[in-house]
Amino acid sequence: MTEIAVGIDIGGTNTKIGLVNRAGEALASTSLPTNDKVKPESFVETVSDEIRKLVESLEGKLKILGIGIGAPNGNYYHGTIENAVNLKWKGIVPLAGMFKARFNVPVVLTNDANAAAIGEMVYGGAKGMKNFIVITLGTGLGSGIVVNGELVYGHDGFAGEMGHLTVRPYGRLAPTGRKGSLETYVSATGIKRTVFKMLAKYIEDSPLRDVSYNQLTAKMVTEAAQQGDKIALESFEYTGELLGRILSDAAAYLSPEAIFLFGGLAEAGEYLFEPTQRHMEANMLQIFRGKIKLLPSAFNGANAAVLGASALVWKELQD
Amino acid sequence: MTEIAVGIDIGGTNTKIGLVNRAGEALASTSLPTNDKVKPESFVETVSDEIRKLVESLEGKLKILGIGIGAPNGNYYHGTIENAVNLKWKGIVPLAGMFKARFNVPVVLTNDANAAAIGEMVYGGAKGMKNFIVITLGTGLGSGIVVNGELVYGHDGFAGEMGHLTVRPYGRLAPTGRKGSLETYVSATGIKRTVFKMLAKYIEDSPLRDVSYNQLTAKMVTEAAQQGDKIALESFEYTGELLGRILSDAAAYLSPEAIFLFGGLAEAGEYLFEPTQRHMEANMLQIFRGKIKLLPSAFNGANAAVLGASALVWKELQD
Repeated sequence: MTEIAVGIDIGGTNTKIGLVNRAGEALASTSLPTNDKVKPESFVETVSDEIRKLVESLEGKLKILGIGIGAPNGNYYHGTIENAVNLKWKGIVPLAGMFKARFNVPVVLTNDANAAAIGEMVYGGAKGMKNFIVITLGTGLGSGIVVNGELVYGHDGFAGEMGHLTVRPYGRLAPTGRKGSLETYVSATGIKRTVFKMLAKYIEDSPLRDVSYNQLTAKMVTEAAQQGDKIALESFEYTGELLGRILSDAAAYLSPEAIFLFGGLAEAGEYLFEPTQRHMEANMLQIFRGKIKLLPSAFNGANAAVLGASALVWKELQD
Repeated sequence: MTEIAVGIDIGGTNTKIGLVNRAGEALASTSLPTNDKVKPESFVETVSDEIRKLVESLEGKLKILGIGIGAPNGNYYHGTIENAVNLKWKGIVPLAGMFKARFNVPVVLTNDANAAAIGEMVYGGAKGMKNFIVITLGTGLGSGIVVNGELVYGHDGFAGEMGHLTVRPYGRLAPTGRKGSLETYVSATGIKRTVFKMLAKYIEDSPLRDVSYNQLTAKMVTEAAQQGDKIALESFEYTGELLGRILSDAAAYLSPEAIFLFGGLAEAGEYLFEPTQRHMEANMLQIFRGKIKLLPSAFNGANAAVLGASALVWKELQD
């Protein structure tokens, strides 16, 4: 009998599902469009059918010990998705309860960055660590904070929103209506905005001058940097300065053992890590210098969100 | 038999000692100069003698259950004071072990702001709260952060240093050599510096124009504000804006149920609380608005540091 946890990652476009064993291996997985035009009941029904098909596909004796869900605006305490701006479901959706009613196993739900942090702790680079932070750099910036071996959910379930820290009080507009939040600078979208700032500031020739805003991707910025392009290198320097300064603040709050960077922009490697580490150390209070590791996530790859979601189950069973 | 905890608050100038019962009443207390010109052994000897005298003075049957110590750069994990800039002892002083050798009871040591947070949880306004922050506004700015009912010490024992958050990257010089840290703006010293900025900026007459920098106290700024003085009111507005913005960031990190302000500057009451709350709410991410209480510490008074130190003992025995 193989014990497995189901991991479900609900994104604005696709929902990914995986059956994961204790070692963090996805034995079977699938993906389907997040059809949030239908009612949540129909969505849960479809996903439940897919889970059953995956179980049958393995043809072995499996025992589902629990279901972990990573979802935008996921509230751990209530097992709900609350007013998620990138999903069409309005108000508060009690998704965990709806899966529990179908499978009668523990169901744990939180946001995707928190799931990534638990994944790092259960299967990844943070094994054995009690105090660390995972920062996810995708369209936006998410964060999962672990203190004393426990995820920080705060009094209402919504802690760990480092993407919404203010780094420039009168800076870039965010979709939230706020100004100068970290994720408008440090994310795949943020570096695109920074490239356009640098194209305006400097006069050097650059392959990026042939690309429109809508065409530009973070990967193209990395490729330009690899060719020594000044615009791209200045954009990474600017990104690293803002992220490094915030991480030196994070040290003052939490003094973590390590900070992990995860997601598309983190795949830029040294172009991002070098300036980030340099500015983090330069701005840090003396007692924290040279002590906090800045590391790539062990999961920089496709199935990371599903693994993170499944890890919620093992963590919950352990507690 | 009355069970008591000994609270010791070690400051740069004085050391305060109190015998405190479970209800948070100081049954006996005393104060002596922190003679850090002598070796730590002699200091511990003197303080131990004072504790014994206090016990004798009560003439009742007392049982000391533990000793709690609040000290600058106190390291909870090791029970040490490490390179404290405002004490003359150099290097790492294993103070907890030295008291334990004399009294053979548990000895808990941390910095004064962490002790204040535990005090608030054990005896004060944070009873029953699992997620809150205490900010101490004295010569500098200290903070104690509680998450999931536990104090945040970080991986090395030094977490919770919000006074060293950078609010102005090219701003005011701090004694640490760093620039623009929160405590150079938001503290008794910080508001003095702000008053001098405002005296330079505005042309209005003010009683504060007759006071030198060295004469000026935070209390004088509050008194001027009470008389409607523009310089004082602008200084509180500026202080409240910077503190409020930081607290909206703290909400994004930790989503606490409440934030307590403690210490001399907090006694300015509404002159500080009103602009702080207004800027905190204005800058906060939508999901946190209107949910986080900004409260005065229950301990704004003389014996608070000793009570906080003694609370470390009750918290440790409970865990």
